[in-house]
Amino acid sequence: MPMERVHNFCAGPCTLPVSVIEELAAELPDFSGSGMSLIEMSHRAADYDDVHMDTLSLLRELTESPDDFSIQLIQGGATLQFAMVPMNLLTDGAEAGYVVSGTWGKKAIADAAKVGSAYQAWSGADSGFTSMPSTGDLEVRPGSRFMHITSNETIGGIRMPEFPDLDVPLVGDMSSDYLSRPIPWSKFDVVYGGVQKNLGPAGMAVVFVRKSVIDEAPDDLPAYLAYRTHHEGDSLANTPPMFTIWATNKVLKWMKASGGIAAMEQRAANRSGRVYGAIDASGGFYRSPVDESCRSHMNIVFRLPSEDLEATFLSEAQAAGFENLPGHRSVGGVRASVYNAMPDESVDALVEFMSDFAARNG
Amino acid sequence: MPMERVHNFCAGPCTLPVSVIEELAAELPDFSGSGMSLIEMSHRAADYDDVHMDTLSLLRELTESPDDFSIQLIQGGATLQFAMVPMNLLTDGAEAGYVVSGTWGKKAIADAAKVGSAYQAWSGADSGFTSMPSTGDLEVRPGSRFMHITSNETIGGIRMPEFPDLDVPLVGDMSSDYLSRPIPWSKFDVVYGGVQKNLGPAGMAVVFVRKSVIDEAPDDLPAYLAYRTHHEGDSLANTPPMFTIWATNKVLKWMKASGGIAAMEQRAANRSGRVYGAIDASGGFYRSPVDESCRSHMNIVFRLPSEDLEATFLSEAQAAGFENLPGHRSVGGVRASVYNAMPDESVDALVEFMSDFAARNG
Repeated sequence: MPMERVHNFCAGPCTLPVSVIEELAAELPDFSGSGMSLIEMSHRAADYDDVHMDTLSLLRELTESPDDFSIQLIQGGATLQFAMVPMNLLTDGAEAGYVVSGTWGKKAIADAAKVGSAYQAWSGADSGFTSMPSTGDLEVRPGSRFMHITSNETIGGIRMPEFPDLDVPLVGDMSSDYLSRPIPWSKFDVVYGGVQKNLGPAGMAVVFVRKSVIDEAPDDLPAYLAYRTHHEGDSLANTPPMFTIWATNKVLKWMKASGGIAAMEQRAANRSGRVYGAIDASGGFYRSPVDESCRSHMNIVFRLPSEDLEATFLSEAQAAGFENLPGHRSVGGVRASVYNAMPDESVDALVEFMSDFAARNG
Repeated sequence: MPMERVHNFCAGPCTLPVSVIEELAAELPDFSGSGMSLIEMSHRAADYDDVHMDTLSLLRELTESPDDFSIQLIQGGATLQFAMVPMNLLTDGAEAGYVVSGTWGKKAIADAAKVGSAYQAWSGADSGFTSMPSTGDLEVRPGSRFMHITSNETIGGIRMPEFPDLDVPLVGDMSSDYLSRPIPWSKFDVVYGGVQKNLGPAGMAVVFVRKSVIDEAPDDLPAYLAYRTHHEGDSLANTPPMFTIWATNKVLKWMKASGGIAAMEQRAANRSGRVYGAIDASGGFYRSPVDESCRSHMNIVFRLPSEDLEATFLSEAQAAGFENLPGHRSVGGVRASVYNAMPDESVDALVEFMSDFAARNG
């Protein structure tokens, strides 16, 4: 019996593949005939170990990350990574550049400045965080240990169309467009992201760390805060978030069966393109506030002619089964988030609703 | 249709109330008619907020913690708290004492020594971690900021029967006997523990922090590592581990309906008492290696006359439906963990099996 599902455009946590939700519900009481739930097992049990190691293996396969990257499952989301990156990388007084392209970039540099020396290499504040920099726009100080970027800003609804091409390694927060685009590994020392957009339910970050970073990291970091700990213990040095990993494993399997990152990237371009198309075809009724070259493929932000009309739009949309369309409380407007697991039918329905609403109110 | 459940004596993650597992499975696809799973919701959604705030409220009610404690849900388990406690409390060069009563106490002091100044106030290493100290056994250096204790050591199978009575505040790791005994709040500045024994599935720690600690904490800590962040944001400053919190909420409701901490404490004494009774009544066939006054009510460790007999015992026990009885790999022997959610029938079955096995092999 299929569930009555709403169209869930939440910016994260967000919609998951319905098959994953159904499998989790069916398998939760008794994992594989073991007489217990997976969440009641020892994290050293063979049944759980299979899920855990398969998750790491699928992450490597889908992202095509080379063997000289360690793949780590760490609790605390991207927020804890804002601290762990400088704690592990900014040794011996080194400094790092940060691209401040929105709320998440601001949080990242704020934490880095508490741990070590961090400078702002570019800021989009003056233009209201509506665009991303090109390589040439960045200030890169000599001797910088790394350049930190946020590949997609969920609140502003912008993404970096290309990753910068620099002489210093990149560190990337890819929380909101993880596994929806290829990662050019040679440019990066660290890539991280919370899982709760494209990968699974909230409860951890997936962190890719170049092994040379681990070799050079300080040896006086507390255990949980050292990438070395998670690397040496295969992310099992302490009890991992087993449900989140189990669910992520199922999402990764779904992703692989759906064509992997190449398919996700194409779908994201197509689906966001249909919504941007509805905006551009509305004769100015809908308006995208961001630089066209930086339009996010994950979070589509748009405005209507007035805040009153926006309120009417959101109210009618909710009544029609569209959930979580209001823009972030700090910016207002409308935001439709279309992560990997978003069904095409929900996007089609939204485009039709937008067209109909514009016809009635334009 | 009841599930075929094994007797799961795992030391953690561990058995949960079967009603909680069944409710999670039933409610996972569609939370309260919302058309989506709770794990697909925004953590700012009203439905999720109800669960979140109710969890904090139940924790306060069940533990009877006074209002001057902040209750926080923090990812990273007790392991991250090994770092956060000294980062937040050891300001201005202050030092702290650590009671090293086993594996967990050792890990706690190792992290503290990396962050600040920590001294060993007592160690059970010489006696193989088979007992706990009394108040008078502790070295308390003048000016100590706090004394760190582990109320129950899961591997050694020992617990502190009474909390020390000192002039300095205690910080307690109660991961493995949380909510199975009352907490004398006036003695503590911080109490923490991973949830995956008595409280829910792995994925976070519950941390009680005296508000004066937060007021006096440094203001240059990275966001996730500051108790102030989690206090001011009601543990919603970043995306929380929603599934773990939801499941913990259900366990807390089950605990309240079952009589709260007083009932949990009595059941723990009774159940562990029955197993210790079987050991003591075996005429030396089974042997408890720990100081009788410090026998854990959660983790009952025992030995048989030979390692061969132990292997036979464990093999026959598993065939009879008893899972996770081997002692920790670092110590061997047998360990039966009987956390709050362990059904009485499983304990009865174990006692009967032990008696029968001793009769056949004694």
